[in-house]
Amino acid sequence: MQVTLAIDCMGGDFGPSVTLPAARQFLRDDPYASVLLVGLPEAIEAEASRLAGEFPGRARFVPATQVVEMHEAPASALRAKKDSSMRVAIDQVKSGDAQAAVSAGNTGALMAIARFVLKTINGIDRPAIATILPALDGHTYVLDLGANVDCTAEHLLQFGIMGAMLVSALEHKERPTVGLLNIGEEEIKGNEVVKQAAELLRGSGLNFYGNVEGNDIYKATTDVVVCDGFVGNVALKASEGVAQMMATTLKQELKRNLYTRLVALLAIPALRHFKQRVDHRRYNGAALLGLRGVVFKSHGSADAFAFEQALRRAADAARNQVVDRITARVSAHLAAEGVTQ
Amino acid sequence: MQVTLAIDCMGGDFGPSVTLPAARQFLRDDPYASVLLVGLPEAIEAEASRLAGEFPGRARFVPATQVVEMHEAPASALRAKKDSSMRVAIDQVKSGDAQAAVSAGNTGALMAIARFVLKTINGIDRPAIATILPALDGHTYVLDLGANVDCTAEHLLQFGIMGAMLVSALEHKERPTVGLLNIGEEEIKGNEVVKQAAELLRGSGLNFYGNVEGNDIYKATTDVVVCDGFVGNVALKASEGVAQMMATTLKQELKRNLYTRLVALLAIPALRHFKQRVDHRRYNGAALLGLRGVVFKSHGSADAFAFEQALRRAADAARNQVVDRITARVSAHLAAEGVTQ
Repeated sequence: MQVTLAIDCMGGDFGPSVTLPAARQFLRDDPYASVLLVGLPEAIEAEASRLAGEFPGRARFVPATQVVEMHEAPASALRAKKDSSMRVAIDQVKSGDAQAAVSAGNTGALMAIARFVLKTINGIDRPAIATILPALDGHTYVLDLGANVDCTAEHLLQFGIMGAMLVSALEHKERPTVGLLNIGEEEIKGNEVVKQAAELLRGSGLNFYGNVEGNDIYKATTDVVVCDGFVGNVALKASEGVAQMMATTLKQELKRNLYTRLVALLAIPALRHFKQRVDHRRYNGAALLGLRGVVFKSHGSADAFAFEQALRRAADAARNQVVDRITARVSAHLAAEGVTQ
Repeated sequence: MQVTLAIDCMGGDFGPSVTLPAARQFLRDDPYASVLLVGLPEAIEAEASRLAGEFPGRARFVPATQVVEMHEAPASALRAKKDSSMRVAIDQVKSGDAQAAVSAGNTGALMAIARFVLKTINGIDRPAIATILPALDGHTYVLDLGANVDCTAEHLLQFGIMGAMLVSALEHKERPTVGLLNIGEEEIKGNEVVKQAAELLRGSGLNFYGNVEGNDIYKATTDVVVCDGFVGNVALKASEGVAQMMATTLKQELKRNLYTRLVALLAIPALRHFKQRVDHRRYNGAALLGLRGVVFKSHGSADAFAFEQALRRAADAARNQVVDRITARVSAHLAAEGVTQ
């Protein structure tokens, strides 16, 4: 199915030197996709001329004159950078010239601009950020990852609906399971908001599994794990920290002496498989959900391989109508609420 | 320095078959320590007779007639099990017969009983659970780990004081650094409670580092990381989940075929070093802080090696007057508050 992505080529730690090679590979792998390459003309042209080999014909340049900085305040990006590559990319979704926008830039600015330009879906109070995390046998979609720090139970319910619809779009699962992130101590199981959210989720018609704990994320106990953005962000960062520590420790031990270096050489095939399986780059591409348009956020430090995964995921979400799915599910929820009120 | 520990020998998944060998090894390693072995006489005698070799003379049996179950409600354990091994062990601290109690039993019950029997220190609203997590180059003390799910800024400040005093006792650091767990998004840096807690910590006289993120735990950016119990519990469980997933994936890849099995054999020394360095058993032994007595909680699934680490840590905390340190620091804080009010 045809799909056009608007790519913010300037975003991320590496800008066009990552986004352009990724876009080209994406086009080569996906013959029905087109891309709009949004950015400063000179920067894009310079990188394009460095790239060996042709760009498929399904790419078109869309100029922008500004760039949102990685640490710029979202309010300033929104007010003062109306011709930034990020803003212009999202404008393409608004105008219908693209079906999804992808950026590796400043998350706060991306959320603020996307919200301002595209608006939220009726019945969604706050957009959320959903990412995929690897599990031993599968993977898990987790949201929110940091867009909302003080959430009500109703917000958590909305996250549950959005997460389930994202999984239905990307994984073609009819009724994805939804878990509510909680803690295990008997006496104090969860705070008040989480207790209320469980009630709402139980009555929502979603395939609600019940409470899950932090380690369930990595066991794929449910398809979706719902939490507020503060908790989700801490869980994500702590997980990255552990993974990094373990990988570095393993590397150090394999470099300890001549013998271990030799063994490491022999172990290359096994270590390569291991690395592939736990490679977070495969899971790059977080969805900004609850907006009237598809927007994906790549990790700022993504390389071309990782950025391409975000492009693929965004194309997939657009082709499988994630926005329509959320809109329909939320209207049904609102209608049901109306009946019971 | 002399110290006596009261050990709840019945707690944990394995009871005396883990706690007794651990106690014996602890006594052998620490010639100035004594232990009170609290439990059902028949269970302890049966295990003691199974243990090959002598128990050092510095152990004394203290009988109890009940056992708190692992999933028993804390309120029921508190009301109906006044002669449980857990309760009797804590009673020994209250009476002064022991300087610390250690249990691998039900956390909620242990906290409820310890709080009821020992009472909290003046100026501490809620006791907290502090654990040690490994970092690439060092380790980090994190609290709260699940005792308190809805915290005020003042509670987080108290956690900061307690954590800093624990580190000063166990690590002999004069002014340990304290970090406040937060998230990195610019727009929305932290919720209201965290923002207020940062203000309080900044004015507390503690060596406050500022905000840290989830991955800082595993980089030992600060000696202490403070968070509410919900966030801390999720971070801990998510971390365990990632570590488990990575270890299992590595094992699976090393068992993939005959060649990788052979390489794994050659890699045993390196893998053993790796395992030792990331071995969570070394960090077993969480402190229940804020009480008028030293109480340590071992992981329920601890083996004898892990349980012994909890015993050592409890002895260390008692010898280095962690309770007095917290009491003094909190009174100073209260006095300063009184002056400025």
